[in-house]
Amino acid sequence: MSNRTELDKLGEFGLIDHITKDFKNTQESTVYGIGDDCAVIDAGDKYTLITTDMLVEGVHFNLMYAPLKHLGYKAVVVNLSDIYAMNGDANQITVSIAMSNRFSVEAIDELYSGIRTACELYNVDLIGGDTTSSQSGLVISITAIGEVKKDEIVYRKGAKENDLIVVSGNLGAAYMGLQVLEREKEVYKENPEMQPEMEGVDYVLERQLKPEARKDIIHFLKDMSILPSSMIDVSDGLASELIHLSKASGLGMTIYDEKLPIDQETFNVARDFNLTPATCALNGGEDYELLFTMSQDYFEKLKGNQHFAIIGHVTDENCTVNIVEKNGTIQELKAQGFTHFNEGEN
Amino acid sequence: MSNRTELDKLGEFGLIDHITKDFKNTQESTVYGIGDDCAVIDAGDKYTLITTDMLVEGVHFNLMYAPLKHLGYKAVVVNLSDIYAMNGDANQITVSIAMSNRFSVEAIDELYSGIRTACELYNVDLIGGDTTSSQSGLVISITAIGEVKKDEIVYRKGAKENDLIVVSGNLGAAYMGLQVLEREKEVYKENPEMQPEMEGVDYVLERQLKPEARKDIIHFLKDMSILPSSMIDVSDGLASELIHLSKASGLGMTIYDEKLPIDQETFNVARDFNLTPATCALNGGEDYELLFTMSQDYFEKLKGNQHFAIIGHVTDENCTVNIVEKNGTIQELKAQGFTHFNEGEN
Repeated sequence: MSNRTELDKLGEFGLIDHITKDFKNTQESTVYGIGDDCAVIDAGDKYTLITTDMLVEGVHFNLMYAPLKHLGYKAVVVNLSDIYAMNGDANQITVSIAMSNRFSVEAIDELYSGIRTACELYNVDLIGGDTTSSQSGLVISITAIGEVKKDEIVYRKGAKENDLIVVSGNLGAAYMGLQVLEREKEVYKENPEMQPEMEGVDYVLERQLKPEARKDIIHFLKDMSILPSSMIDVSDGLASELIHLSKASGLGMTIYDEKLPIDQETFNVARDFNLTPATCALNGGEDYELLFTMSQDYFEKLKGNQHFAIIGHVTDENCTVNIVEKNGTIQELKAQGFTHFNEGEN
Repeated sequence: MSNRTELDKLGEFGLIDHITKDFKNTQESTVYGIGDDCAVIDAGDKYTLITTDMLVEGVHFNLMYAPLKHLGYKAVVVNLSDIYAMNGDANQITVSIAMSNRFSVEAIDELYSGIRTACELYNVDLIGGDTTSSQSGLVISITAIGEVKKDEIVYRKGAKENDLIVVSGNLGAAYMGLQVLEREKEVYKENPEMQPEMEGVDYVLERQLKPEARKDIIHFLKDMSILPSSMIDVSDGLASELIHLSKASGLGMTIYDEKLPIDQETFNVARDFNLTPATCALNGGEDYELLFTMSQDYFEKLKGNQHFAIIGHVTDENCTVNIVEKNGTIQELKAQGFTHFNEGEN
């Protein structure tokens, strides 16, 4: 071939756009393909939801500090999170793994014990997969299958002007957990005798190593008869996800710095690292909280509920996402989600 | 951990049994989990079929002789084949890839052009996936989604005593194609100036590099109102697949050496390599033909049809699969399917 374009030139989202631009959907049962948290298939009186994620050793996880059991758990959870982000129920998963002979049967047992724990907790069945060898490292590819009533599905598109912007739980903790683990890894490399400094960081470590998908939030919303107008899960960071919702819905969004839900421990750890807590909440990623918009009519139902933070509202400004700082200045948010394509080959 | 058991001690099927033994299906919608060509999910008036495969560079394919376009095509086809093996229609796929920065955008375009060609030919939509970097090489994980009417699904189990054993197309060609490619790779390594010897091997090369899934066979059978009693696709080799059908159905099988469908070119190439053509047909793998059992009542419908070979019958001998040699001697067949776990880590 005469031309060579490097992968990192396009970035992950650019590459996906580039790859998929020539594909056309022709099947009647394909309701929605690429571009949301899940693909949507017509299954008669319901929709089937399909989502898939691939985790690669050295890119998405580091076995030096991620125990295999937690890794298995997390690999399932991140997929289920995508099903819940469509307001659906997850029912099944398939798990494919490629692993080198560096891994023993006992190591694989650890991985699958985490997968099984997640299956039991979230009530999903392991129904298939593939196991193969690799020439280096571990690759995990999981597909989750779910369902949703046709009149209850929530897409990234659908936000309406003046809708409230709501996020579940709190943000930035998983990112701070990652910072702690990276710091301890460096300390360990320099002096393996040194005891790790893990006091006061339990919560942020758990959010990084063993995150939960917010199935409970979907049920809270159903119980309160709240149907979001648009929704996404926070995997790449709040800023990136707000931009997704905004683009998909063709509207602008304004959020308020002072409304961002940040746990006290996250706040403290961020300060220890000389990081601005709000920046960690906006760009950290891996929170797996649910970000959604909803009609102002639901305001009274959610007001004061500890599981939710109302962080802003939908505007008529075409696809611009702004944050109002505590001092009143307005800044436009740009996504800083993860890009992996600058990794080197060994 | 105190114990260390090597992965290759269990083999691929042993490892799958080991991994899955502690998983229990609890979802009402899970009709069939691990152990057939697809998982089966209840979708109201139909079944949804799900299958997934992972292909790893250096294990399943070698980019030295597999063009990326063909690789993309083949990666889709092997998954669709599993849907057809349940007598279903394939409608959608998801494609996840991990690739190192050794790959350019142009290389990925080649891969996806093969994927697109397969999607167009087999009428399936690409509805999702994941793209990420890897630290070495290319990994492709594809999930196919299909559907089948509830009264038309065909499992590996279900063969009845005295049923006929039928296989579509012919066997052993893909394996001979692989032998030719391996030979030319060695020749090239020794002398890059040497022209490859590719005369008279077009068919076996195509069967290896660009196999087809037998969607047409499913339609032939429907047109003739033939419903197989059990079915599987031939991916690991005829012997291995017969043993799967036999075990799942709890019955024995007898096939006849002289009935094995072997193409003339396959026969010639096998002879060139000093291999017994029947052995290649039995153990070669990657044929992606359909192997099924059916009632003798259908015999007249299939008799003389060039797309099918009746190679034997189901017996009452508990799970024993025998082959009757041309000289009349009877041998028990043992599976020699692929095992990948003896591969080394770089």
